[in-house]
Amino acid sequence: MLGLAPGLTIIDLTHDLPPHDVRAGALTLVRAAQYLPDGCVVLAVVDPGVGTDRRLLAVACERATFVGPDNGLLAPAVALLGGAGTVVSLTRQDQHLPAPGPTFAGRDILAPATAHLALDGPLTDLGDPVDPASLVPGLVGLPTPLEGGALQAEVWWVDRFGNCQLNVGPDDLAAAGGARGEPVEVRLGDRAKAARWVDTYASARPSELVLLVDSYGLLALALDRRSAAAEYGLHAGSNVVLVPPGTTVPA
Amino acid sequence: MLGLAPGLTIIDLTHDLPPHDVRAGALTLVRAAQYLPDGCVVLAVVDPGVGTDRRLLAVACERATFVGPDNGLLAPAVALLGGAGTVVSLTRQDQHLPAPGPTFAGRDILAPATAHLALDGPLTDLGDPVDPASLVPGLVGLPTPLEGGALQAEVWWVDRFGNCQLNVGPDDLAAAGGARGEPVEVRLGDRAKAARWVDTYASARPSELVLLVDSYGLLALALDRRSAAAEYGLHAGSNVVLVPPGTTVPA
Amino acid sequence: MLGLAPGLTIIDLTHDLPPHDVRAGALTLVRAAQYLPDGCVVLAVVDPGVGTDRRLLAVACERATFVGPDNGLLAPAVALLGGAGTVVSLTRQDQHLPAPGPTFAGRDILAPATAHLALDGPLTDLGDPVDPASLVPGLVGLPTPLEGGALQAEVWWVDRFGNCQLNVGPDDLAAAGGARGEPVEVRLGDRAKAARWVDTYASARPSELVLLVDSYGLLALALDRRSAAAEYGLHAGSNVVLVPPGTTVPA
Repeated sequence: MLGLAPGLTIIDLTHDLPPHDVRAGALTLVRAAQYLPDGCVVLAVVDPGVGTDRRLLAVACERATFVGPDNGLLAPAVALLGGAGTVVSLTRQDQHLPAPGPTFAGRDILAPATAHLALDGPLTDLGDPVDPASLVPGLVGLPTPLEGGALQAEVWWVDRFGNCQLNVGPDDLAAAGGARGEPVEVRLGDRAKAARWVDTYASARPSELVLLVDSYGLLALALDRRSAAAEYGLHAGSNVVLVPPGTTVPA
Repeated sequence: MLGLAPGLTIIDLTHDLPPHDVRAGALTLVRAAQYLPDGCVVLAVVDPGVGTDRRLLAVACERATFVGPDNGLLAPAVALLGGAGTVVSLTRQDQHLPAPGPTFAGRDILAPATAHLALDGPLTDLGDPVDPASLVPGLVGLPTPLEGGALQAEVWWVDRFGNCQLNVGPDDLAAAGGARGEPVEVRLGDRAKAARWVDTYASARPSELVLLVDSYGLLALALDRRSAAAEYGLHAGSNVVLVPPGTTVPA
Repeated sequence: MLGLAPGLTIIDLTHDLPPHDVRAGALTLVRAAQYLPDGCVVLAVVDPGVGTDRRLLAVACERATFVGPDNGLLAPAVALLGGAGTVVSLTRQDQHLPAPGPTFAGRDILAPATAHLALDGPLTDLGDPVDPASLVPGLVGLPTPLEGGALQAEVWWVDRFGNCQLNVGPDDLAAAGGARGEPVEVRLGDRAKAARWVDTYASARPSELVLLVDSYGLLALALDRRSAAAEYGLHAGSNVVLVPPGTTVPA
């Protein structure tokens, strides 16, 4: 891209996603979306279908343009930024790099498209417009209230400290009966643990499992200065049930 | 380097090479070479002989200048870019940073030389010209046809997905009797596996070992959404024999 | 930060510190300090007390300004650069980003402060001045001479090659009786090994443990092309006793 657009400023959001994990990529983009510089172009590639007939898209939103495969990777961030405006399919082959095969669209198709857009080149130079409503949706689940009032939740992300972000916001937990400063029962597979809802990591007593509002506004399971993921065997996608006072889980 | 040349644009090609692995560094430079922005300066350091009498060089090629130790690291990329023009040995000590010892030439000698060249400083400010023919050659082997027509090949690189790049191009395999869409027998140590030559990762059936032209134009052994390296115990340097239909391997 | 200060040049010193390890962060800053471009702003975050009443500071030194938590992280680098000039506590909330909670001060308080300073904004816009003498000191220990003349030392850092940097300079070892080219007895837990003081990694014979002046001017325990840390079970914080010729350790 710097060969095509020499003055470009590039931010490496991450190169550390688990291979082939479209959902992890989509959630990473959502976490980054509100902090993107205005007018930036976001190149995103998690593309296990590379070289097949899945589409490659450029999706203009109000504050940013996303470039990537149409496999759900872009959809949640696009939604967060107000939805898709113009969308084009990157079919104009004269905008692609010559390549020995179809196995690295990130480099050969998405990167030159990104450089083109970063130079304020028109979106429609890159291919034909497609219906924004035709984008493959993202697969990010909401918490499910169970009979009895408990919340069926899911770990969305384990950060480098081992904190486990849930797909549950503080309002969800409060609506289900949770309260700041109070414990909530947490079912982790076979185990049930009490987790106090605190404000900071350092509020946790040694070895005390806590819930806190993390830096993206979602509840996370955490230990102070230790990895909750390692301690409780949690990973992205793990199921967790939150059982606030006064609620029950189905037998 | 930004202290010496404040406006510099720096691309971090990688900091993740296996320690002391000159060949892995050389192959990484070869993969990057054709994508380098015109006129750039490439600082490369894999330098187990740091502080000994191995030379440090700046090698001007047509599209880029390479700065690094003369231990084979630079040679393949220099060859790919058309060979060495002027070469100097970085002997001018007034161009080096003061240092507590000779253990980090990358920082104390190569980095200031790179900054100097990035500011369009003359190559000959850095030291005395040396004969381009005197560069230590790179150690990257070609595939060897065996008696019976099979190809003795080698894994050059395992990417982060576990795909295993071989030192074999599609023309080599076609010349030996392989054909797109057809299986080739692959000998991996004691095991023999059939690997179909396909175009995309997603063309592989679940658990089917395939060969495909990777993004650098070489054949790679791959599984769909899984690591072929982990499954078959392959790593950079592993020997592999390709036995196309109609060929044999010596007993 | 690029959203707030679009022209900014950002250097990623590291994102690979062990979680919560303030001392590793402090030592990393010390190693980097003398190579910082003049006038730069250094954002440093290892902040296990995030959200508690520990202070967040901007510390102006002669050649750089440091922004980070007041937990000892900044102190050694500040001292190396001549000590703190003006120091402010980052209490001005209108300079903070809106945030869902207090769990990521690095992003919400330190990053906008850094961008402000990088744009030459006044330090005093960020909060109230505090006494430079009130900074929490850094916890980096000096080597201790033992009865009998040996040196009680400590591993400060294991680099990616497995070389083990000690908190001992060549002058310390020479004063205790060590000499270049000569062996020094090294006590590693239960084991005693002779380590020759050499100038380069390549001077070590196969499997020979050596001491050499590393690229930061401190002595390091090393093996040639292998990891001394892995071989001897050393890590940051490990205790090591150096017993030069003519010295003894207490029984």
